[in-house]
Amino acid sequence: RVNGDRLWDALMEMAKIGPGVAGGNNRQTLTDEDAEGRALFQKWCEDAGLTMGVDKMGSMFMTRPGTDPEALPVYVGSHLDTQPTGGKYDGVLGVLSGLELVRTLNDLNIKTRHPIVIANWANEEGARFSPPMLASGVFAGVHTLDYAYGRRDPEGLSYGDELKRIGWLGDEEVGARKMHAYYEYHIEQGPILEAEKKEIGVVTHCQGLWWLEFTLTGKETHTGSTPMAMRLNAGLAMARILEAVQAITMDFQPNAVGGVGQMFFSPNSRNVLPGSVTFTVDIRTADQEKLDGMRARIEKQAAEICEALGVGCSVEAVGHFDPVTFTPELVENVREAAVELGYEHMDIVSGAGHDACWATKVAPATMVMCPCVDGLSHNEAEDISKEWATAGADVLLRAVLKTAEI
Amino acid sequence: RVNGDRLWDALMEMAKIGPGVAGGNNRQTLTDEDAEGRALFQKWCEDAGLTMGVDKMGSMFMTRPGTDPEALPVYVGSHLDTQPTGGKYDGVLGVLSGLELVRTLNDLNIKTRHPIVIANWANEEGARFSPPMLASGVFAGVHTLDYAYGRRDPEGLSYGDELKRIGWLGDEEVGARKMHAYYEYHIEQGPILEAEKKEIGVVTHCQGLWWLEFTLTGKETHTGSTPMAMRLNAGLAMARILEAVQAITMDFQPNAVGGVGQMFFSPNSRNVLPGSVTFTVDIRTADQEKLDGMRARIEKQAAEICEALGVGCSVEAVGHFDPVTFTPELVENVREAAVELGYEHMDIVSGAGHDACWATKVAPATMVMCPCVDGLSHNEAEDISKEWATAGADVLLRAVLKTAEI
Ligand SMILES: NC(=O)NCCC(=O)O
Ligand SMILES: NC(=O)NCCC(=O)O
Repeated sequence: RVNGDRLWDALMEMAKIGPGVAGGNNRQTLTDEDAEGRALFQKWCEDAGLTMGVDKMGSMFMTRPGTDPEALPVYVGSHLDTQPTGGKYDGVLGVLSGLELVRTLNDLNIKTRHPIVIANWANEEGARFSPPMLASGVFAGVHTLDYAYGRRDPEGLSYGDELKRIGWLGDEEVGARKMHAYYEYHIEQGPILEAEKKEIGVVTHCQGLWWLEFTLTGKETHTGSTPMAMRLNAGLAMARILEAVQAITMDFQPNAVGGVGQMFFSPNSRNVLPGSVTFTVDIRTADQEKLDGMRARIEKQAAEICEALGVGCSVEAVGHFDPVTFTPELVENVREAAVELGYEHMDIVSGAGHDACWATKVAPATMVMCPCVDGLSHNEAEDISKEWATAGADVLLRAVLKTAEI
Repeated sequence: RVNGDRLWDALMEMAKIGPGVAGGNNRQTLTDEDAEGRALFQKWCEDAGLTMGVDKMGSMFMTRPGTDPEALPVYVGSHLDTQPTGGKYDGVLGVLSGLELVRTLNDLNIKTRHPIVIANWANEEGARFSPPMLASGVFAGVHTLDYAYGRRDPEGLSYGDELKRIGWLGDEEVGARKMHAYYEYHIEQGPILEAEKKEIGVVTHCQGLWWLEFTLTGKETHTGSTPMAMRLNAGLAMARILEAVQAITMDFQPNAVGGVGQMFFSPNSRNVLPGSVTFTVDIRTADQEKLDGMRARIEKQAAEICEALGVGCSVEAVGHFDPVTFTPELVENVREAAVELGYEHMDIVSGAGHDACWATKVAPATMVMCPCVDGLSHNEAEDISKEWATAGADVLLRAVLKTAEI
């Protein structure tokens, strides 16, 4: 079993970097705060005897050697980057539980046949640079390095430039590493485990996602002197599309979600009807057919809404992954570990996307989840108990040992 | 008659300051560009023999003396500030036609009994600092100086600080000046005069306005892992309110408008349902009862929409003026001037707010309008012909002379 107090102390220490405004964190990808968090993690890992590799996307890989020089490493990991108003656990828990796992093995002087590598994947959140899980996506061959370097934040700064600026451009080819298996431990970010009073989620699948960025082109005109009949009202079209997204999502119940988190009006002046409105629709479900059906209906209805209002409508898919089935053997390892440790557990589908999803493309992969209070995440008030944190780290340790072999 | 070429040259010269991105202007209130525009106008006025006064709101008053030391001045004016993506004529035409009027009187060596003062009112647009017509509102006793100084732009900078920073804090008490009458010449900013093929709008009334700034409070949660039933979706509430604004406005036809130009999502991240959504509803009509009826219905329906979604709803009126009736004697002067000069004219209601609206509180006041192409304004593509510009300036000159007395 891991040392829950030590894990908790590490979480609290990391949370001091890039503090938020309401008790959480703002440590977005490739900011100075990200660099500071990486340096702290690096120091902790080196103190634990791990050696670092960094790839050209800025992902960090900290290796504990195995006893068999031929054996591929077992990877554990997640991400240290956060939302602009993020919590202290989303991502961080998985990375620091990897560290705690290694510290525990060191304490007990346990050697494994396979090396163990802790990964801190760059830009998991996708908040500053879309899409999310960008570095693991390049690692898995889903995106090219050039595509990733060219992604821009809302201020127009590129991933490539910012990676260089913060000093974390590594020299490893992205995806050159081979994994024996990948385990990711993460908070649920939803309400199910807490409601069902389970300490452990055995993650069998992950919902697929489309991020549909709509750009509606209206006519920039005076709000006061432009008669209603003469308006090309992109704001009204946006409102109707949001209502359509809601209605279509409800048609696809149960187990489908749809909503909008990001919105820009231009020129965004109170007495100017917007010349353009840009927003991103986020839709998800674990069923491939449903996912693509939702997308098709939303795009069709949006086009009709805009047509009727004389508003231009263009759509770009700025994020996407298909529904994922995690590797049954690893899922079974997680389930067994929970049983052996006596933790209440249940099978669960991940609502959020994770680097583990892309990892399935290149290795056997799965996830462990612990509950979070009120299902709240992507919120500074995100919260978990030390007991939950510890339970998941225990399960992670035991499942990893099944694969890494003592 | 004025010199139309000289007027046009002055317009084109001023448009070089604070150029926009698409042929128009970005010379927002209390920016460096605003200061540059003011300095150019000051120089032109001083070259024409005028003397400057500046009040504590930063409004500029350029005086041409009259022959009767007892006679109060006749004011003409408008504003040199623009929208972030504004046109070359909105406001500027009225100020520079005042200058052209003086230049013409100088050329012809015409003296008037009443002094003539050209006013450049500060912060007419209300784009950077709400509400619009802020300096003329303080002048008319509608707002206090403290209120005005405390208004903040989206970056949090205050009117008072920015006024000092650009060096245009004057020493005159705001509103200390007494006016014999106020004439304002402005482009229509709507489509009516052009459609009716009239060169001159004789402005009899102005629509009243409410700017209702809504702040909707949802729950910042993950777009992927938060089930539909658990969402407190402020974005959806916003969409429903926009649709309600549209429906209610259509119920109040004809001659009522309603729409939304400004919108902020927070934290504005694609995979976070917004914790708050802030937007400003702009409603206008020339009928007091209708105006207040629209406001009441919108606020009631918004509260119901939010209630049903569990979303918090607060409203602040960040801009307001009642419908205005311009002074009949001055309106008649404008009408007569158009007839005498042989210009096609019609009575018209101003769709936009103007400093002339506040001027009615402290003096007889009215307006002259000329058409603009496609009714387009608050758009860099805003356009007028030199002939239209000249026609209005001619009418302004002749109407002013009726009041200022040769
Ligand atoms: N776990 C997580 O929040 N990942 C970000 C990508 C997503 O929106 O699902
Ligand atoms: N004329 C003009 O655009 N004034 C700004 C205030 C308003 O929105 O009516």
